Amino acid sequence: MATVAGMAAATSLIAKPTMKTTDKKQLAHHVFFWLKNRDSKEDLAKLIAGLRTLEKIETVRSLHIGTPAPVEKRPVVEDSYSVSELILFDDVEGQNTYQNHPIHLEFVKNYKELWEKVVVYDALSV
Amino acid sequence: MATVAGMAAATSLIAKPTMKTTDKKQLAHHVFFWLKNRDSKEDLAKLIAGLRTLEKIETVRSLHIGTPAPVEKRPVVEDSYSVSELILFDDVEGQNTYQNHPIHLEFVKNYKELWEKVVVYDALSV
Repeated sequence: MATVAGMAAATSLIAKPTMKTTDKKQLAHHVFFWLKNRDSKEDLAKLIAGLRTLEKIETVRSLHIGTPAPVEKRPVVEDSYSVSELILFDDVEGQNTYQNHPIHLEFVKNYKELWEKVVVYDALSV
Repeated sequence: MATVAGMAAATSLIAKPTMKTTDKKQLAHHVFFWLKNRDSKEDLAKLIAGLRTLEKIETVRSLHIGTPAPVEKRPVVEDSYSVSELILFDDVEGQNTYQNHPIHLEFVKNYKELWEKVVVYDALSV
């Protein structure tokens, strides 16, 4: 049965086809890694290869793996990290599934010796 | 004129319809704000309203505004910030256009009194 809320949501989507903000709530899970061997291109490539395995986890909606972009140096810009891993989940539950997923646990087990520091941000859209 | 690289890219997109990793390179611009008045719901709402104006900038491909998600507390999780702003650009040029855009400059001018600290990460996909 079509609900009033459902119809309103559908109308809203039709009315805003060029809307760039994600209407659906999402959880942005952003992890920054600092390699032990900061200048090792081999370790960098290994970690990136390991991160690519994470996209197979079923609750991962999108995966963005990056390194510091060549942007203007400003005091507020943190660019000392080695690798950035950005994953979008539908919700906290999707992130929990990911954390305990065999593929993620295998990734941590196989690659954790490569990094000396990790910082994680989990932001839920408002 | 269709280039070989362009045709290869198109073939790649067709061949991997369920690929979750963004094939196209993107710049993830992630800004974390710490409010001066950390417990002020009014200031939080003001800042969020200000951030929403940024999606009108033409180089912004997507905008995700969030607050710390209710995830498991772990030592590596940074959840002391007030608001997260995550923007995807096509490239560094798109980010430069954004930085100097009147809408962005207006945002900084009108809302900078609200925050006491900002940390910015710019990660270019590999």
